Amino acid sequence: MTNSPVTNDGLADEETPFIRNAWYVACFSRDVVQGTPFMRRILGEDVVLYRKADGTIVAMKDRCPHRSFPLSSSKIDGDDIVCGYHGIRFGFDGVCKLVPTQASAPRALNVRTFVVRETSPVVWIWMGDTETAHRTELPAAPWMLDDFGWATAYDYLRVNASYVFLHENLVDLSHLTFLHANTFGTPDYATAPFETEITDETIVVRRTVQPTRLPPIYANPLGMQNVDAARIVTSTFVTPGLSISAVVLRNLEQPVESRVDHHIRTAQLVTPCDQRTVHYHFVVARDFVIGDPGVSNFILQSVKAAFVEDVFALESITRIRRDDPDIHFKEKSIASDRAGVMLRRRLLALAGQEAS
Amino acid sequence: MTNSPVTNDGLADEETPFIRNAWYVACFSRDVVQGTPFMRRILGEDVVLYRKADGTIVAMKDRCPHRSFPLSSSKIDGDDIVCGYHGIRFGFDGVCKLVPTQASAPRALNVRTFVVRETSPVVWIWMGDTETAHRTELPAAPWMLDDFGWATAYDYLRVNASYVFLHENLVDLSHLTFLHANTFGTPDYATAPFETEITDETIVVRRTVQPTRLPPIYANPLGMQNVDAARIVTSTFVTPGLSISAVVLRNLEQPVESRVDHHIRTAQLVTPCDQRTVHYHFVVARDFVIGDPGVSNFILQSVKAAFVEDVFALESITRIRRDDPDIHFKEKSIASDRAGVMLRRRLLALAGQEAS
Amino acid sequence: MTNSPVTNDGLADEETPFIRNAWYVACFSRDVVQGTPFMRRILGEDVVLYRKADGTIVAMKDRCPHRSFPLSSSKIDGDDIVCGYHGIRFGFDGVCKLVPTQASAPRALNVRTFVVRETSPVVWIWMGDTETAHRTELPAAPWMLDDFGWATAYDYLRVNASYVFLHENLVDLSHLTFLHANTFGTPDYATAPFETEITDETIVVRRTVQPTRLPPIYANPLGMQNVDAARIVTSTFVTPGLSISAVVLRNLEQPVESRVDHHIRTAQLVTPCDQRTVHYHFVVARDFVIGDPGVSNFILQSVKAAFVEDVFALESITRIRRDDPDIHFKEKSIASDRAGVMLRRRLLALAGQEAS
Repeated sequence: MTNSPVTNDGLADEETPFIRNAWYVACFSRDVVQGTPFMRRILGEDVVLYRKADGTIVAMKDRCPHRSFPLSSSKIDGDDIVCGYHGIRFGFDGVCKLVPTQASAPRALNVRTFVVRETSPVVWIWMGDTETAHRTELPAAPWMLDDFGWATAYDYLRVNASYVFLHENLVDLSHLTFLHANTFGTPDYATAPFETEITDETIVVRRTVQPTRLPPIYANPLGMQNVDAARIVTSTFVTPGLSISAVVLRNLEQPVESRVDHHIRTAQLVTPCDQRTVHYHFVVARDFVIGDPGVSNFILQSVKAAFVEDVFALESITRIRRDDPDIHFKEKSIASDRAGVMLRRRLLALAGQEAS
Repeated sequence: MTNSPVTNDGLADEETPFIRNAWYVACFSRDVVQGTPFMRRILGEDVVLYRKADGTIVAMKDRCPHRSFPLSSSKIDGDDIVCGYHGIRFGFDGVCKLVPTQASAPRALNVRTFVVRETSPVVWIWMGDTETAHRTELPAAPWMLDDFGWATAYDYLRVNASYVFLHENLVDLSHLTFLHANTFGTPDYATAPFETEITDETIVVRRTVQPTRLPPIYANPLGMQNVDAARIVTSTFVTPGLSISAVVLRNLEQPVESRVDHHIRTAQLVTPCDQRTVHYHFVVARDFVIGDPGVSNFILQSVKAAFVEDVFALESITRIRRDDPDIHFKEKSIASDRAGVMLRRRLLALAGQEAS
Repeated sequence: MTNSPVTNDGLADEETPFIRNAWYVACFSRDVVQGTPFMRRILGEDVVLYRKADGTIVAMKDRCPHRSFPLSSSKIDGDDIVCGYHGIRFGFDGVCKLVPTQASAPRALNVRTFVVRETSPVVWIWMGDTETAHRTELPAAPWMLDDFGWATAYDYLRVNASYVFLHENLVDLSHLTFLHANTFGTPDYATAPFETEITDETIVVRRTVQPTRLPPIYANPLGMQNVDAARIVTSTFVTPGLSISAVVLRNLEQPVESRVDHHIRTAQLVTPCDQRTVHYHFVVARDFVIGDPGVSNFILQSVKAAFVEDVFALESITRIRRDDPDIHFKEKSIASDRAGVMLRRRLLALAGQEAS
């Protein structure tokens, strides 16, 4: 019933297997409260996360090996988790420590664990090979962390679409003029000059819009309404779990020598839930009007309103692709899709490497 | 999981492919408001309809060829439609006129269009071959049109059942006594004499019930409560998109020479949404008490109440056929099913012709 | 998509075919009101039950042989049922007696009937071979009947899980300490000594917990709060449609010679609706404080609260088994699963016998 229009063209789509060897954001730090297990489905697997007595987070498969009861509906006892059905007890390393009705605790009952790293406000998880996890750095986006010194705000959306298409949506922002006409798009955005830069590591699209007028999300906090401004946006695909949008804003009506660059960046943390659902965490960080929580909230709500428009687009598209009886329908790409097409090709290649 | 009880008997059912070369009612004229795209799924395909600047209606596939965004969530600009995702612009003929991020508008991005005819209060669409559309007349039911001079009223129901079974339900009305006992059925209806007439064009069942008492839907507007009356009902399968119920009502207590025939007809406009869903438009027209909108409303509500009983029956049957694990169950036909069986045989034959 | 973790191990699971030759509770007596058909899906088949004029209950397939209309949406007329679509009339033996539009009533239109026995407060049905039904006794649990003299109370839950796993849950109650910690479990329950007794007829687990403290469900009606007590629980798998929990309660602080055994038993009436849904009827009967309806209600609500915990467990497990992409996952059994494993082996064997 599912019509994947582009599989044959060597591009990733919703049928592409997940890429397990990558860091994904499992949840926000605030989601995992001491004493309470937290469940999240990641790359198709249910994972339970909880904090040990010392506050560090552990993650394991959310399925008791005995009769498949969800450990996330179980009890935390010190560093252990105790299954809510028959009381089988597991250590934070997943090792079975006790079966109440018998003397021995068989190793066959051990639970699989996952590597976790917390860099507040986010918790990262590695769903693939443990060895590889230990020698792979977290993706670098220090400005989104609590201790960097920028003002941050963050939130979460659940998207009923493939993570592939969310990445494609994020790397080319020419849709701002249309899909986001009422939020952060401006009429001149789609036709502004842009350059695409593709390396072995990243895929980057940079758009320079100037002179332009800033949308309220930027103009209001900066007091730059009705001012000729420059807006330089760099969209970077970093890893399957992270895309960054970095914006530079500049007042062109000020004398050149006194101009200041203002920065606002969004970490778009893309975690596949399953093939057609995404956990979409995002952290917005800025280096201006840092001390004003009202501004943080205004910016966060503005970003979220725009992201809800993306969700609408991606979910509509997903429905249409799924329901069209024309199995020969093939989507056509245009010149501005170059970065998105490269990105999908890369995701397919990464998935292929893991499979082999 | 689906058990088609009669496929082997040469009768159409919910598995039968659609008949594309036929006129179907897409929607009512009032559904397509200037400036706003209107979406309807027809024969399994999403179609967007909108009015050009001159008021005429156009229809095209509701899927942008670029990234599958729904054109029905897009903007109408004069005679054009502009995709709400990346701003790609299409003329009313489906031709791509502009891609904002590049100089050329590739023909590969053209959208498929459908032939449309508006005869208010309904909008017809042809989902099949365009040539054939142009040489095929709309089905003749002039009395349902705004400009015919009869009083009309119309409404819509969505039915979660195959259109095949709605047609079968409409051609034989012996169920009025039972399914519609509380609406327009009377106890003598099922046992009244009837004749079936089958031609290459149509399938007709005519039932003459006399003397009888009229149900409130007819008796009240005509002031014929508790009066010996004649009720002659002609059910006609006209095309896969149209079945007509034509009723003649006559007061038998009046002298023969002064008797007047009153007419009330229902255009039952049957448009498959998908294999198991129907858009059921209906227009009720009469030649009596023409100027009274209260009567129009009373009759429309009465008809709708009865049609809701049909919907209940068809949806229940659909569920039962789908869920019965007995895959050998075969429905048995009775004598009064002759017209319905012929109709289902014809639908199967028409579908077969198109496939070959 | 469904991962049956244990099929290969010779244990029944949700894929195992139903066992038709057994007595199942179709509904409570109070569910079948004179004059009104009552529908229940049993072993995957829709069944309509109704009372004849003399009050006895009949059951037949809930599908008119003509056009599959639900007889449960039809009219009862004396001992007959009259299809609500075209008025076809059937006797209580399923024989077609009248087709309104024709002179004859073809035998081909007969409806299949099922053997029914009413022993108030429950109605039993036999979905298999009629001959075998007539020579098979109802399972013996006389204490649950209206006329036995014990106080009874009963209720119903619908469980979205296989009946196999409900039986497994019921035969081994070591989970009381954990899943039912807030209802009828106590900390010492899981570690109390137990014996398993397996015969050709039944599978029995008996647990003796003493000295123990009784949970409120027993302690309150008996005035045995904070008293050293004995609690002896016998769980018996009787048939695929019945599991019995029989509890003996004893005050150990009374002199040995004046101790009285109090009895409370639950008939757990397990009727598969379909492969992954169960009609769970239960009747709780006791021989103490018999005349107090407040006590009956308190005990019934307490039992139901605990059973809702079982429903949560079974539905969670069902979801997890279904959604885990790891198709190689195999549940591991522990020593206390012996009775449950035997039970599942027996259910698989019974299903296999019927299939051959």
